[in-house]
Amino acid sequence: MNGPTTNPRPPGTGHPGASYTVTVRVSAPADPALLATLAQRATSVGAVVVGMDLVEVATAGTTVDLTLQAADEDHVGAITALLDESGYRVRHVSDRTFLYHLGGKIEVTPRVAVRTRQDLALAYTPGVGRVASAIARRPADAWALTAKGSSVAIATDGSAVLGLGPLGPLAALPVMEGKALLFKHFGGVNAYPLCLDTHSTEELINTVAAIAPGFGGINLEDIASPGCFEVETELQRRLDIPVFHDDQHGTAIVVMAAVLNACRLTGRDLRDLKAVLVGCGAAGTAVAEALLDAGTTDLVVFDRDGVLAERPGAPAHHARLAARSNPRGLTSLAGALDGADLFIGTARRGSVDPGLLARMAPRPMVFALSNPEPEVFAEELRGDAVIATGRSDFPNQINNSLCFPGFCKGALTARCSFVTPAMKTAATRAIAGSVSDEELALGVIVPSMFQPRVHEQVAAAVAEAWSSEHPAEPGPS
Amino acid sequence: MNGPTTNPRPPGTGHPGASYTVTVRVSAPADPALLATLAQRATSVGAVVVGMDLVEVATAGTTVDLTLQAADEDHVGAITALLDESGYRVRHVSDRTFLYHLGGKIEVTPRVAVRTRQDLALAYTPGVGRVASAIARRPADAWALTAKGSSVAIATDGSAVLGLGPLGPLAALPVMEGKALLFKHFGGVNAYPLCLDTHSTEELINTVAAIAPGFGGINLEDIASPGCFEVETELQRRLDIPVFHDDQHGTAIVVMAAVLNACRLTGRDLRDLKAVLVGCGAAGTAVAEALLDAGTTDLVVFDRDGVLAERPGAPAHHARLAARSNPRGLTSLAGALDGADLFIGTARRGSVDPGLLARMAPRPMVFALSNPEPEVFAEELRGDAVIATGRSDFPNQINNSLCFPGFCKGALTARCSFVTPAMKTAATRAIAGSVSDEELALGVIVPSMFQPRVHEQVAAAVAEAWSSEHPAEPGPS
Repeated sequence: MNGPTTNPRPPGTGHPGASYTVTVRVSAPADPALLATLAQRATSVGAVVVGMDLVEVATAGTTVDLTLQAADEDHVGAITALLDESGYRVRHVSDRTFLYHLGGKIEVTPRVAVRTRQDLALAYTPGVGRVASAIARRPADAWALTAKGSSVAIATDGSAVLGLGPLGPLAALPVMEGKALLFKHFGGVNAYPLCLDTHSTEELINTVAAIAPGFGGINLEDIASPGCFEVETELQRRLDIPVFHDDQHGTAIVVMAAVLNACRLTGRDLRDLKAVLVGCGAAGTAVAEALLDAGTTDLVVFDRDGVLAERPGAPAHHARLAARSNPRGLTSLAGALDGADLFIGTARRGSVDPGLLARMAPRPMVFALSNPEPEVFAEELRGDAVIATGRSDFPNQINNSLCFPGFCKGALTARCSFVTPAMKTAATRAIAGSVSDEELALGVIVPSMFQPRVHEQVAAAVAEAWSSEHPAEPGPS
Repeated sequence: MNGPTTNPRPPGTGHPGASYTVTVRVSAPADPALLATLAQRATSVGAVVVGMDLVEVATAGTTVDLTLQAADEDHVGAITALLDESGYRVRHVSDRTFLYHLGGKIEVTPRVAVRTRQDLALAYTPGVGRVASAIARRPADAWALTAKGSSVAIATDGSAVLGLGPLGPLAALPVMEGKALLFKHFGGVNAYPLCLDTHSTEELINTVAAIAPGFGGINLEDIASPGCFEVETELQRRLDIPVFHDDQHGTAIVVMAAVLNACRLTGRDLRDLKAVLVGCGAAGTAVAEALLDAGTTDLVVFDRDGVLAERPGAPAHHARLAARSNPRGLTSLAGALDGADLFIGTARRGSVDPGLLARMAPRPMVFALSNPEPEVFAEELRGDAVIATGRSDFPNQINNSLCFPGFCKGALTARCSFVTPAMKTAATRAIAGSVSDEELALGVIVPSMFQPRVHEQVAAAVAEAWSSEHPAEPGPS
């Protein structure tokens, strides 16, 4: 089970999860109760034991590999310290996360055979010269004669890596590789991580525009706001392929699908919601706009300076939202949460006191989306809450991976040249609709990413949404 | 057999080859001699028939698929016209080259499993956040925890695509994909084709510098001279990973390996050669410099304006070569070829009259490297000539693919930060040395690309050449 556990753990530590899975090799004197003792020791400090293997049994002693989930590095330290006591000796600690990433998570591989000199004559010179010349004469042929039609660039400057801040392009690489992995696994899309050493929005725009010819679409990723808004708008103006800032639109699409289903589960209507959103970066802004576009009127938005209102010198995206939100003129988070139906956090743990959420209406809908630590954990909420987070180790994961592989697949299939509102709405409905009435439950407001149909359904809906507005022109054949 | 054929063909057409392989479907009245007749017809106009398959035999008639190699599109037209005569009907012509390229030649694929939510928690959020943070703290860890250490960018602006000219970045894509295919197939290197829409050397330099963080090396490709020289030099000055313009150095390394072996075969010494080089772009310049660096003194270089000499306003790379070459002060190509041991063409068919090559010394070494049409075909030369071309369908193919996969693999293995002369020499010797004394022959002065050892030997030699000059510093572990 991946659900939240009620495992005891020292106050102040986070939640044990798969991302802190370590294997601890322990040696101890021969003892029939050894495994039980080890498991008990680890559990007593909040570890979740997920596996035990005997490595060696000898008269001198026994060696055991204990695989467990911890909350963070301090927690690992506390656990191994306890395992190392009273005659037991920790010989080695290996970290499954780092092992998983060794050597990278993706590779570039051949789609065609290279077995003979004849193959080489086709793949490379002289044969490829004919293909290059054909594309020079008729650029549209690149969609068929190269991988352009199935490939996107994942472009980032590393200015807002996950929730971790401006770690820079190199540190962003494992994240972009992870994204590329999911692009292929779930959508069949070839995604190229491009981590860009640029230092202004202009430089970033120019670089992404320059790399565009070989791709059928651009997925912008982990670019800090407010620069990300200009980067997306200006690139879309310059390019004839779709530009999609996933942190904005991918998040908004999946959140809206989950909100639709949470309303379906609790018998609410989007237009009647009292909604509160905390965090007004790229994701929060896109989610707020999507909610308003979908008909929610009573939305109150907070950033680190309090309620979003007309402020001198506010960035354009804040000013736009301030003008559209907070119809009741509220001023405090506590006041806004009084009787609220929906809370969405896209900020960080600590941005809202979990206790305040008790003020919400019955069966509140709580979307605590900050990563890696959500604004609030399930066990800090009332039992009747519908809770969603960004974590893959909890239920109701609001994960862009539900959207971007299918969304970009559909955009590539339709050979669209930009992203339309209809495509986003179609993706939202496809995701929401892939949870049947029978499946819909407190812990199932979004489909599992491993339900293969959802990605196909998103792709088909997105392609159809473009094509119905842009019937293909009969081209030369 | 892949050797040159003596097949008759109409004067003025090129040489039939695998890159013009077509399958022609023909229907004809039932006739036991049908296959023989079809093959005879095709052969009579110079086609090389490489396969025949019966598709349907019925009383009404017979359908046959005839697969054949032609010289060019006009040649295909002439062949199909003849096959379509006197009661025979051509129903369909399919082009194997274009079929081979459909959908692109490479893809981006997972190296790790994505089977469970636990895998997702490692690959993506929250687990990947730990890896990103670790790299932010210690950038060198990116070499182990991402694909950086096995990946290169293939960067081009499409300003000199093969021998075809400035076709632009989009038309360059099939070529770069072909290169990426060979990088992986022969060297195990992940290569990302990046076809850049840039319009000045400065823009190209800035763009490649910006995309560099995710890569362990940069392979520059098909960039016109003289811009390519500045691009390479300036990028290497800015970056801490090796920058390698393959058209220059890859070509020079493979040509030098072949020259070494041609000398070995004909009992010559590099230092005593009379050498003539025609074509002074990126490849020609690098080959000329490599020859001079290796000890050849009597080299005469020609470009389209005649012999390279001090000319006012000449580009820097021409001026440098002019100062180092032509010690006898020759002025004509005919004069330079009188008694010459080595001819190297890196220009285009038509740049030298094949008849002039009869003036060369006995057992002349003729490297006709222009693509796709070599400066001279084997049958236009004396029988005692050692001839090499750039074509994969003739013997002695001077193909950079013998070098770049292993070279870049070795550079990545050594984690070198720039390319040294010793690395190039090591690669040249490894390629030449992989042809044994027993194997060495008129048609075997370079190893086959399909000899797996050659790529490993190049990689090992290149890595060793770097490491012996740059012993690893003990780093924090």
